[in-house]
Amino acid sequence: MTVETREISIQSKGNCDIIDITSQVAKQIEESGVNNGIATLFVVGSTAGITTIEYEPNLVSDFKNMWDRVIPQSIPYEHNKTWGDGNGHSHVRASTLGASLTIPLANKRLTLGTWQQIVFVDFDNRPRSRKIVLQILGE
Amino acid sequence: MTVETREISIQSKGNCDIIDITSQVAKQIEESGVNNGIATLFVVGSTAGITTIEYEPNLVSDFKNMWDRVIPQSIPYEHNKTWGDGNGHSHVRASTLGASLTIPLANKRLTLGTWQQIVFVDFDNRPRSRKIVLQILGE
Amino acid sequence: MTVETREISIQSKGNCDIIDITSQVAKQIEESGVNNGIATLFVVGSTAGITTIEYEPNLVSDFKNMWDRVIPQSIPYEHNKTWGDGNGHSHVRASTLGASLTIPLANKRLTLGTWQQIVFVDFDNRPRSRKIVLQILGE
Repeated sequence: MTVETREISIQSKGNCDIIDITSQVAKQIEESGVNNGIATLFVVGSTAGITTIEYEPNLVSDFKNMWDRVIPQSIPYEHNKTWGDGNGHSHVRASTLGASLTIPLANKRLTLGTWQQIVFVDFDNRPRSRKIVLQILGE
Repeated sequence: MTVETREISIQSKGNCDIIDITSQVAKQIEESGVNNGIATLFVVGSTAGITTIEYEPNLVSDFKNMWDRVIPQSIPYEHNKTWGDGNGHSHVRASTLGASLTIPLANKRLTLGTWQQIVFVDFDNRPRSRKIVLQILGE
Repeated sequence: MTVETREISIQSKGNCDIIDITSQVAKQIEESGVNNGIATLFVVGSTAGITTIEYEPNLVSDFKNMWDRVIPQSIPYEHNKTWGDGNGHSHVRASTLGASLTIPLANKRLTLGTWQQIVFVDFDNRPRSRKIVLQILGE
């Protein structure tokens, strides 16, 4: 068994910036010593999340609109009294979407669908330098 | 360590079809060479998701109703201009629910609760032939 | 490779009780024989979920308020006709949030952010004794 703990670095614009990280993940898997096993992606931080989507601009816009509608920035959040950061909505969205994604590797390839990309979603209300842990475990 | 990458095939009706796949998963684990480890389930495609639920018809109906209420089909989606498929809501729901589920195996059994089943949720707006990757990793 | 299947026991108050389990998870990892690998957390049961959050009281309150707003207890649920438990909303919330969380371990530490804690969320409508499976897999 091999375990490789790697990182993916991202500069995001915040405000529900949705960034396709598929090629970065695939490149790191290519460089790893693992052919079959699990790729675990984990978002370090509490105002961003990770999921998969068909990455085309209109759908990316729809996904953003859903967060604006279901967990709006405009309603009051108690958290905004704690630090004065104004990012209560960012935290609530991040905890709802989730910080981890696990994708099987088979013959050194992610088992994604043709129209399915891995996206990092930065809900924070300002640009951020971000780190995602990519752990590749298998043989 | 053993890694087995398997598949589960499903015919779904679409339109938030919620399908109990627990027995199919358990059967494949039974056939595998792994007693203790991780079962990773990953939905191939961008209009379906996976989770656990108490699989009884009334609750299945409640879960469907929640999606209809929170991410309705009836509001405009930009994605519907991209391909004309009319399944913008399906994609947004799928990205929200998530494509991966990880369940520990102990003594060749999934560590599910008594009233907890694994369900595949097909949000697409038409019947689909679907593939779920089941990767069993352990010893 | 080592696989250790452990348990975390919790007494919850129910009604969206949000409990920080980070130190319990970290302690069990400390006691394990694994330095690098995956910590899989899995909620046994169908009325609770797991995620990460910045664990401070105001944000915990915001997260609870979001569930009350988006998947309210006060609307009718068909499931409440099945058992008469009145916890239809608990099940729908649990299936939406999800039962599994996967966190990489590097040098015997969870790769969490400084302001990111692991929380168990009990959506049931009464106090419960709960069990979370923590499986530590790696080397």
